[in-house]
Amino acid sequence: MRTTSAFARTPRPPYYVVIFSSVTSHTDDGEYQHEAQRMLDLAASQEGFLGIERTRGVDGFGISVSYWTSRSAIAHWKANADHLAAQRKGNEVWYDHYEIRIAKVDRAYGKNPRTAIG
Amino acid sequence: MRTTSAFARTPRPPYYVVIFSSVTSHTDDGEYQHEAQRMLDLAASQEGFLGIERTRGVDGFGISVSYWTSRSAIAHWKANADHLAAQRKGNEVWYDHYEIRIAKVDRAYGKNPRTAIG
Repeated sequence: MRTTSAFARTPRPPYYVVIFSSVTSHTDDGEYQHEAQRMLDLAASQEGFLGIERTRGVDGFGISVSYWTSRSAIAHWKANADHLAAQRKGNEVWYDHYEIRIAKVDRAYGKNPRTAIG
Repeated sequence: MRTTSAFARTPRPPYYVVIFSSVTSHTDDGEYQHEAQRMLDLAASQEGFLGIERTRGVDGFGISVSYWTSRSAIAHWKANADHLAAQRKGNEVWYDHYEIRIAKVDRAYGKNPRTAIG
């Protein structure tokens, strides 16, 4: 089982989220894997990035949720030149179908063993 | 590869979303599987339900994103008696860690082979 580091450590709301749902048949493709990791690292270096959670099932359907301080941080990330090239490749080659939804988080709660008492 | 039915068919924004990220070690547990499916079916029968997307990796980390017409639809679903019992069990037994975030979607776009031209 993965450790709790799979979770993003987000602040109290409000903050913003990009939900990226996709189907790819390229999960075993080295170039795809390399680019996906490079985009993750690049996203994490952007102003306003708060964290990311992602998972993909063996069927190729995946969900990636990235968290941001503001809508403008999301817009800047979308317009990043390196990211634009990856988006183009994703659109043309890697993803058979994807949906992107941008939303404002205004409520958050959970169960976190790191912060639990006892 | 899974068909495009893994995607929720949501209307034009605005609409609302519940992002449920979790870690479980019970993926092979028959009772868990049964209850998860039962809750999916029950959610789908609720007033204001628009759709759901979900996936879990082999590491036990999963993301489930459900879409709703309104905040009150989400509140009603959270307060459903059957769902409350499942939430209690999830909290006490099934999920080692989970995070729930509620957000308002105000922008959506994507690539959908069903609606593409040519």
